[in-house]
Amino acid sequence: MTQFDKRNISMMMDFYEMTMANGYFNDHDTETKVVFDVFYRQNPDGGGFAIFAGLEQVIEYVENMRFSEDDIEYFRQQQMFSEEFLNYLKDFRFHGDIYAMPEGTVMYPNEPILTVVGSLIDAQLVETAILAQINHQSLIATKARRIVKAAGEGRAVSDFGARRAHNMDAATYGARAAYIGGVVGTATVSAGQMFDIPISGTMAHSWVMFYGDEFEAFKHYAENYPDGTVLLVDTYDVIHSGIPNAIRVAREVLEPMGKRLKGIRIDSGDLAYLSKRVRKMLDEAGLEDCKIVVSNSLDEFTIASLLSQGACIDSFGVGERLITAKSEPVFGAVYKLAAVGENGHFSPRIKVSENVEKITNPGLKDLYRVYDKDGHAVADMLAVCGEEVDMEQPFRYVDPQKPWKNRNFEGCRVKNLRRLYVQDGKRTQELPALGEIRDYVKAQLKDEIWEEEQRFENPHRHYLDMTPDYYEMKMELLSETRKQHG
Amino acid sequence: MTQFDKRNISMMMDFYEMTMANGYFNDHDTETKVVFDVFYRQNPDGGGFAIFAGLEQVIEYVENMRFSEDDIEYFRQQQMFSEEFLNYLKDFRFHGDIYAMPEGTVMYPNEPILTVVGSLIDAQLVETAILAQINHQSLIATKARRIVKAAGEGRAVSDFGARRAHNMDAATYGARAAYIGGVVGTATVSAGQMFDIPISGTMAHSWVMFYGDEFEAFKHYAENYPDGTVLLVDTYDVIHSGIPNAIRVAREVLEPMGKRLKGIRIDSGDLAYLSKRVRKMLDEAGLEDCKIVVSNSLDEFTIASLLSQGACIDSFGVGERLITAKSEPVFGAVYKLAAVGENGHFSPRIKVSENVEKITNPGLKDLYRVYDKDGHAVADMLAVCGEEVDMEQPFRYVDPQKPWKNRNFEGCRVKNLRRLYVQDGKRTQELPALGEIRDYVKAQLKDEIWEEEQRFENPHRHYLDMTPDYYEMKMELLSETRKQHG
Repeated sequence: MTQFDKRNISMMMDFYEMTMANGYFNDHDTETKVVFDVFYRQNPDGGGFAIFAGLEQVIEYVENMRFSEDDIEYFRQQQMFSEEFLNYLKDFRFHGDIYAMPEGTVMYPNEPILTVVGSLIDAQLVETAILAQINHQSLIATKARRIVKAAGEGRAVSDFGARRAHNMDAATYGARAAYIGGVVGTATVSAGQMFDIPISGTMAHSWVMFYGDEFEAFKHYAENYPDGTVLLVDTYDVIHSGIPNAIRVAREVLEPMGKRLKGIRIDSGDLAYLSKRVRKMLDEAGLEDCKIVVSNSLDEFTIASLLSQGACIDSFGVGERLITAKSEPVFGAVYKLAAVGENGHFSPRIKVSENVEKITNPGLKDLYRVYDKDGHAVADMLAVCGEEVDMEQPFRYVDPQKPWKNRNFEGCRVKNLRRLYVQDGKRTQELPALGEIRDYVKAQLKDEIWEEEQRFENPHRHYLDMTPDYYEMKMELLSETRKQHG
Repeated sequence: MTQFDKRNISMMMDFYEMTMANGYFNDHDTETKVVFDVFYRQNPDGGGFAIFAGLEQVIEYVENMRFSEDDIEYFRQQQMFSEEFLNYLKDFRFHGDIYAMPEGTVMYPNEPILTVVGSLIDAQLVETAILAQINHQSLIATKARRIVKAAGEGRAVSDFGARRAHNMDAATYGARAAYIGGVVGTATVSAGQMFDIPISGTMAHSWVMFYGDEFEAFKHYAENYPDGTVLLVDTYDVIHSGIPNAIRVAREVLEPMGKRLKGIRIDSGDLAYLSKRVRKMLDEAGLEDCKIVVSNSLDEFTIASLLSQGACIDSFGVGERLITAKSEPVFGAVYKLAAVGENGHFSPRIKVSENVEKITNPGLKDLYRVYDKDGHAVADMLAVCGEEVDMEQPFRYVDPQKPWKNRNFEGCRVKNLRRLYVQDGKRTQELPALGEIRDYVKAQLKDEIWEEEQRFENPHRHYLDMTPDYYEMKMELLSETRKQHG
């Protein structure tokens, strides 16, 4: 096996994880338990929420994490680590616990998406691989959801992005995330194979150019794939060549076989204008059932614009702007220490920072979603871990942005948003199939999440409230830290 | 080995490659040779050029490309392919030739970076993997070069981007590309290990938060790494806590060991203001040699702004905006059919398109770089393949944007920019080490590429000229195609 076939994800770490781990080890601290939270600070593209994706890969990663002899030798060559520590790495396995939202959960800024509880070294060594996985897949799932939303019910969106993805993983795991976000399939074969996502593909311009004559090229394709003939019509001229040749193939090649032309694809030019002209030409030729597929640098904004211009489009192939999340290609989830085990309990830690928005939510905590009697998610809520949240009683929330404002949500119910997925390094439950995750996203958006949070322009900001006990703990810790560190 | 450790790059393809290949196979066309060019249309970020990267991985890929039983079974399940074709895939190996610029070459829009010459099926099946590799690495190398340029001579830039990369490959191959583009090293361990890139890493905020007391945390770090103590000073308050504690560690921990404080890092806040205050505090404490490292959403624009404000910074850690090329995360190289073998010679093909800028440069061709007598690259030039370009004689060029304008470059010399790297599926030469590629980039930018092309604002546009023979061939083909397809 060449280097090229390997993917040594245990070494996918920032080197500081190793310098810290070696330091902790030398200080004889392999036992202290700590709590790290993963959270993000802003929804991409000014949206009202994001979609949590990548959990399955996080779990696979921690279960399989280990260092080979070669890996350890590489660390030795850095001449910074003690032999005792390098020896310790030989049998290193991740023994921590992981709490997380189910994959596909609608999530909001500043709440703990995923929490690692484990020894200092265990928890520190998994930082970057966990973040990269969640950041990448949540980014693409969230972007895909926006694009699918713009396309609207009944118009399919497919992922065509592999060639512009940031290398192979970005194409395959990106296709997985896009499927979670709602695309109907992908053109990327590796993703179809790995994750059982429907794949599709027809022809490139090269097919048409190879045969030289466009009709000849279309004819060959139709003869090979009479049940799924989708013809790329813009190699030379859509209106004067592509569509007339496509219609001729429908009549002269497919009809005699008892088949219909399934679709045509336009990949350049003014898609609004062309799609309307093409629809008319196809309809006049009796090909009302022939679908119009378009591609070419599409995203939620261009799709919304096309549809508002009355473009006649049945299906979108979305490439670079989905697979790179071009308009905002960074999902900024971070991994922050929230608590340290001391004398049998977890003592909360806070990061103050020069930037107010970078102050963390300390402590081991629970995260609840609050639903009104119609089942709409009206807020999320942080609580001290294990604190009883009795919704039978009028319950007070604190909006941390307006702490003077007490709120009661009468008749509401809460759901603990997170589950224990990994215990002592092993998964605690079967994970859902990818299709189930995709359905779960759809169901939340249909039944639970306000339309006002789903719109693109100035979406309603979802509240992250706190129980009074949690709020007081945070304020106390903040003032202590300020006292100690100025 | 779990799925997670594998990287089956042979399946990293768009499904249409397979539908086309099966079609060609069924039409009994496994012999016809074709020529595909890789080129891009626009420099990222409005720059004057780009850096070619990813060639080594392209070569590894074509050498190792093959389909396993599982892969073939997956294709069979799609129920679109003939058994004969699936059988043909069993022993499939890439037998084509690949011409390319050396990795690290400064490149410009619309010129063939890389050319695949092979049978129809061979050449079609490698499209997406080649594009993804070149697009990704050229994107990041080009971005890195811009950031390193903004930082200026004597200020190091390091890649800190793994956690925001689009999954693991994007982090590791991105670090490789960033190194080609001029960063001094990476924090990403897998990249250091795979490509022998210098790695660095110190501490996260979690280290400081874990010990609770900032001085205590710094002290532990200095004791563990007295030769490379770089302290992260912004966990609580840079000016009132971080720097005073760092100075105390320099005096109380390092000095008694005969060591100096190597550096401090600031990761939040107003980096211009803070770095100036910090420089003064360090200097006054006799720590003039202590380096100031900054990080936090940096790119060429923020770095230029910091330096123009007189910020006192020795070194930049650049993360998300480098590893995702945030300001323009898509490198749009495409793979287009240029010629088809007919009766023993290659007959050129052209794609016309509704968008004028999408018209391709047809034919099997040579690409020359033209140098003036001072060694500056004054233009690139397309020639008919094998055409003799005699620079001893006054030689006429055609600027395709202004074909009425004839130009002579007297006293110039030309260099054939591309070499044969793969012949019949096997590499023809040893590839340079990564450090050599990096040096080659540097040397071109120092000696060959005009400063006017390197600036960020309105850079000079490099000319892509054509020999008269090449120009006439293209014009003739265009008018023929127009006649045939309207």
